[in-house]
Amino acid sequence: MAIGEEQDLEQYCIDTARRARCASAAMALVDTEVKNAWLIESARRLREAQSDVLAANQLDVEAAPGFGLTSAQTDRLRLDAARLEGIAAGLEDVAALPDPIGETIETTTRPNGLEIAKVRVPLGVVFFIYESRPNVTADAAAICLKSGNAVILRGGKEAAHSSRAIVEILQAVAEEKGLPADALQLVSVADRAAVGHFLRQADDIDLAIPRGGQALIRRVVDEATMPVLKHLYGNCHVYIDASADAEIAQRVTVNAKCQRVGVCNACESLVVHAAVAPQLLLPICQALMAQGVEIRGDQAACGLIDGARLATEQDYFEEYLAPIISVKTVASLDEAIQHINRYGSHHTDAIIASDEAACRKFAAAVDSAAVMINASTRFNDGAMFGLGAEIGISTDKLHARGPCGLKELTSYKYVVSGNGQIRE
Amino acid sequence: MAIGEEQDLEQYCIDTARRARCASAAMALVDTEVKNAWLIESARRLREAQSDVLAANQLDVEAAPGFGLTSAQTDRLRLDAARLEGIAAGLEDVAALPDPIGETIETTTRPNGLEIAKVRVPLGVVFFIYESRPNVTADAAAICLKSGNAVILRGGKEAAHSSRAIVEILQAVAEEKGLPADALQLVSVADRAAVGHFLRQADDIDLAIPRGGQALIRRVVDEATMPVLKHLYGNCHVYIDASADAEIAQRVTVNAKCQRVGVCNACESLVVHAAVAPQLLLPICQALMAQGVEIRGDQAACGLIDGARLATEQDYFEEYLAPIISVKTVASLDEAIQHINRYGSHHTDAIIASDEAACRKFAAAVDSAAVMINASTRFNDGAMFGLGAEIGISTDKLHARGPCGLKELTSYKYVVSGNGQIRE
Repeated sequence: MAIGEEQDLEQYCIDTARRARCASAAMALVDTEVKNAWLIESARRLREAQSDVLAANQLDVEAAPGFGLTSAQTDRLRLDAARLEGIAAGLEDVAALPDPIGETIETTTRPNGLEIAKVRVPLGVVFFIYESRPNVTADAAAICLKSGNAVILRGGKEAAHSSRAIVEILQAVAEEKGLPADALQLVSVADRAAVGHFLRQADDIDLAIPRGGQALIRRVVDEATMPVLKHLYGNCHVYIDASADAEIAQRVTVNAKCQRVGVCNACESLVVHAAVAPQLLLPICQALMAQGVEIRGDQAACGLIDGARLATEQDYFEEYLAPIISVKTVASLDEAIQHINRYGSHHTDAIIASDEAACRKFAAAVDSAAVMINASTRFNDGAMFGLGAEIGISTDKLHARGPCGLKELTSYKYVVSGNGQIRE
Repeated sequence: MAIGEEQDLEQYCIDTARRARCASAAMALVDTEVKNAWLIESARRLREAQSDVLAANQLDVEAAPGFGLTSAQTDRLRLDAARLEGIAAGLEDVAALPDPIGETIETTTRPNGLEIAKVRVPLGVVFFIYESRPNVTADAAAICLKSGNAVILRGGKEAAHSSRAIVEILQAVAEEKGLPADALQLVSVADRAAVGHFLRQADDIDLAIPRGGQALIRRVVDEATMPVLKHLYGNCHVYIDASADAEIAQRVTVNAKCQRVGVCNACESLVVHAAVAPQLLLPICQALMAQGVEIRGDQAACGLIDGARLATEQDYFEEYLAPIISVKTVASLDEAIQHINRYGSHHTDAIIASDEAACRKFAAAVDSAAVMINASTRFNDGAMFGLGAEIGISTDKLHARGPCGLKELTSYKYVVSGNGQIRE
């Protein structure tokens, strides 16, 4: 698509959003069987089209250096037979999940005989903006349509060919299976201004979901005129209580920090009760350093750990996404809670403790989407929680918090049945 | 409070929001018994202070002409012994409602032994901006605090003395009963700019709820940097299907339009299937006209009703809040659904029909917070739905839709319990 002028671009975005709105009315009424048939046949056709999809992906991989992608980023962009199989299997997994739409959430009968049912319905139109790997294109389409929504996908330009190849297959099958035209649309212009135009279409888009770095998310929050469901960042803590089991403390801390350093639910900060710091901190930090982790501690921590460097206050605010950890010693559970609520990002925080009262207090007072008791922060994830597919992990408190699967992309309506009741 | 400069005003708003944020952490942990004791004792003390509250209200009533209030508006502002008793009883009603906080919404045990509980928690800090009667001050404080939130109330200047008198009692009892200081704050400056300053405190305010006219709500939506839960407006329809019972059609239409014309769930538009319009439209419109309702119909309707005037397209978008109704004839159920989704406000729409398939289709396809089947639109209301107290009726689809009571002012967190699990 050639866009000559800014006005044409804006009109393209307005038209795309309107088409999605029209499609969403029909999507809300599509039978579960039709949605599942679309997912299962799309999986089959993706496998069948393997060579075409991999050829399209090859174009993205070849263009990657021109976009300044690192070799690690290019590797995440690359598809092969196994990864494509993973994408296809992902569609089948979503087909196997229960359809949330039409579920009666609760019912009441009023004294006047009115029957009030709260029924789950789709949100409507989702605008999904992402910077991620090609598999996100297929996952997002599957989750949004299975939950009865229309979706406008805006993927990163780095994966443009791969995303287009995948979406073309999903769209062709959608047409065959009788899904509404335009229920799934991929934004076909690379121009950054398009995102801004979409974010002004509050009448036709019900929800914007940005997924990517903090700069993208802040831009979407600033410009959106519709609600935004966002994952801002994860500054996750492991707190080692005075009552902690030493072995669990070390195992969980090392796993939370090292199992995968670049992800949102990785541990970025270790908080240790002063009563056990002299015994526990050195072996834990030695285990971390053995895996290449740099330690940045407060005065007390630095006094206990050879090779630690003094943390600044800013360190406690940091989401490193790197092999670095901040360490803070505290005099009490209360101080730990205050520290985490103040410096953390309300994403995922863990307590290691055998004292049940301490665990309960931590779980109640730490204001985070997920609180882990004697378990790794890395478990805050849709798949690990058994939600099936997820479109992201929300750090918001409104509407949905934590991993967002099918249900989190729905709303509800009240259906009230009577036989002529009027209000006196 | 004397505010000399804009900078002082901004600082006052920032400080108020920060104090609310601090209070919210403690509010989340307050026992149900303490919250209920506060509500019950506040009710008692409001009754005890009747003469003081009524004297404060008298100051507002005397100032009303200076604010340009009509006599109907002044009447709504006026408190008397019966209305004050209603406010006190409202607090007791909230005390009797179950506390949503701490409820385990669902639990799962994962194959690795992790126990995942989804637990209801407060939202945090609510900023409530309203233009309403003095009873809203007490209702909003009760609902927000019972659901574990801190609240900043910004009432209309017309009710400033009444609101202050009520809040001072609630605050005094809060202190006695051990609620966190600043859990309940009333904005003490009349300056309109204060609202703008609060709407920029997204770090310290989790949710803004405007309640009032469309101008107020649009201002809050435009300026807010935090999520907004809003009731925009109600352009509600009654659709009379070809299968409608004539008696029910007339009874419900007259009730929906006339029982109280100035409210959001009153009917503003009548949609009639052409097959029954010749029989039903005239008697229904005569019954409406007998109650002083003006009829604005399309060509077909005007041909059937003496004294009807021709509607413009704009009429179908109107929320009259007045004794006027638009009338549209349609050739099919599908046309009725399209008309309502296009011109309506997604608030409350009713179908009168004996054909169950038509009722099911209407309920599924009309995209409104509440769909009434053979019942008046006037039932879309927290009290009528049995929710107990409500803070408003949401026309949003995210987070909460329809009447918002205690549960709708909550979020949830995941509490995950293990015994040392790590992610492989």
